[in-house]
Amino acid sequence: MTEFGFVESIKKMFGEIPQRGFEGIGDDCAVLPVGDGTALVFTTDLLVEGVHFLRSAASAAEIGSKALAVNLSDVAAMGAVPVATMLSLALTDDTAGAWAEEFMCGYRARSSRWSVPLVGGDTSKSLSGVMVNVVAIGRARIECLKRRSAARNGDAILVCGALGASAEGLKDILNGDFETENACIHKNPTPQIEEGIWLGGRREVHAMMDLSDGLASDLEHILKASHVGARIDTECIPCVSDLKTAVCGGEDYKLLFTMRHSAVNRLRSEFAEEFGYAPAVIGTITKSQSNRPEWFADGKPIEADWQGFTHF
Amino acid sequence: MTEFGFVESIKKMFGEIPQRGFEGIGDDCAVLPVGDGTALVFTTDLLVEGVHFLRSAASAAEIGSKALAVNLSDVAAMGAVPVATMLSLALTDDTAGAWAEEFMCGYRARSSRWSVPLVGGDTSKSLSGVMVNVVAIGRARIECLKRRSAARNGDAILVCGALGASAEGLKDILNGDFETENACIHKNPTPQIEEGIWLGGRREVHAMMDLSDGLASDLEHILKASHVGARIDTECIPCVSDLKTAVCGGEDYKLLFTMRHSAVNRLRSEFAEEFGYAPAVIGTITKSQSNRPEWFADGKPIEADWQGFTHF
Repeated sequence: MTEFGFVESIKKMFGEIPQRGFEGIGDDCAVLPVGDGTALVFTTDLLVEGVHFLRSAASAAEIGSKALAVNLSDVAAMGAVPVATMLSLALTDDTAGAWAEEFMCGYRARSSRWSVPLVGGDTSKSLSGVMVNVVAIGRARIECLKRRSAARNGDAILVCGALGASAEGLKDILNGDFETENACIHKNPTPQIEEGIWLGGRREVHAMMDLSDGLASDLEHILKASHVGARIDTECIPCVSDLKTAVCGGEDYKLLFTMRHSAVNRLRSEFAEEFGYAPAVIGTITKSQSNRPEWFADGKPIEADWQGFTHF
Repeated sequence: MTEFGFVESIKKMFGEIPQRGFEGIGDDCAVLPVGDGTALVFTTDLLVEGVHFLRSAASAAEIGSKALAVNLSDVAAMGAVPVATMLSLALTDDTAGAWAEEFMCGYRARSSRWSVPLVGGDTSKSLSGVMVNVVAIGRARIECLKRRSAARNGDAILVCGALGASAEGLKDILNGDFETENACIHKNPTPQIEEGIWLGGRREVHAMMDLSDGLASDLEHILKASHVGARIDTECIPCVSDLKTAVCGGEDYKLLFTMRHSAVNRLRSEFAEEFGYAPAVIGTITKSQSNRPEWFADGKPIEADWQGFTHF
């Protein structure tokens, strides 16, 4: 069962239960308008030893830091400000002491950096393997929320930074090189919190999400939710190494967004003033009903059957 | 690290991070006032195979149902209405199919019963053992929220129903009797959602919590948070079997609350009209600074060193 399969099955099984003000499942976060012009957003991620991380390859502090980062990334990808997290931790006998303390130090360092309080949690013994579940809660003015379903025909498609570093880092780690620059990015990615909040404030930005499963796979979520297609000019994709790694590699946590075409130049220059770099324009939303991107190289269509990254 | 130790260590480590409107840790749920006179409350519980449940002793549906129930119980214990849950599930190869479906059926049945939508979640492969993390979100008018810190000197102490069934059921299960009445209560406890919401609406009710670790242990949380003591008349405690099991047994999920003494008779009779049974008065809040209950039997103090139930 992939995460996407799980989401589909939940939608079906739980469809008849009243939503109590929550918007339906399908975005980076669940959304609850709270009546003062703002909405709260909620996301959760489960990290399992041996599946999502190896204790032999990453320090406890790195794992704690990453567990927080990937959840904050989902909040920022909605254009929301992270306001709190909750943490559940299942610990083996040999991790319940010093390892857990170091994990919490990594978790706290990033919590401090973005001033996100830890407001609840649970701990348990685990008979084999560490398991970490993080919940992140965010808040935004309702008009700032960016949804996957908001892409429009003619929108420009942009990405905030070069893709593929995390996948390259994973290759390094599997080769035993734990401390290369890319390995460190894989072990401890930096979520684009400030960028997400800033883009949330721009009305010309329509759909947004963070790249966790790879561009090829994640872009399809926007296309399906928005009932549109896309043309991607592959030579415009900023790549850390090769194109395939950039398009199919997971866990980059860079923001992908679509926006009104006529406002691209101004937004890119104001973004660059704020953050020191500009998002790259990689393609255009089209009215194609296929909901799959069409890939081009130097103006010519290319055949590509790129699959995103999946853990399970 | 017990849950209580974890909470204490979080308080210390994260004390300097701004709370962003959240009340400090220490109740059944984290509390966030949202500006329209209501507050949202949040709780999370982690259940680990071999620690919290045995697949050989409980059906997948029972485990799914219980995972939801214990979280909804925490929400109701604040006097709040459960409005949503999120579910994270780590599945082994042999549980990813039929077992997971049956688990979801159990989870859905109770979600339907209380009209609580499932708004998010995550799934992962697990290399050994199922792990379940549930988050429950509730909502209440701010003046309805019941906190552990609100007990007052002279308050009556009440409990909603007989204690010890779950502990007796666990004994049955460990003896191989999986289908006794108490075993079924242990495997699939009924949270007192309606009672919690009803008591939330009564201003004469002060402190409230649900009994998950046993009366002896849980009552101390109220006493510490409220800076008071308590006198418990043990002959007044409704027991399923013996007194020790009632006082020390965990996972009853009955509500424990304190209230203005002069309103007890009216509240008990109105409660009984609504629910068909009356909460039992088991003692009185005192001004003792020891923060530990004093136990009495037929008016005479008894020595008791009762420890609550702890998983870890």
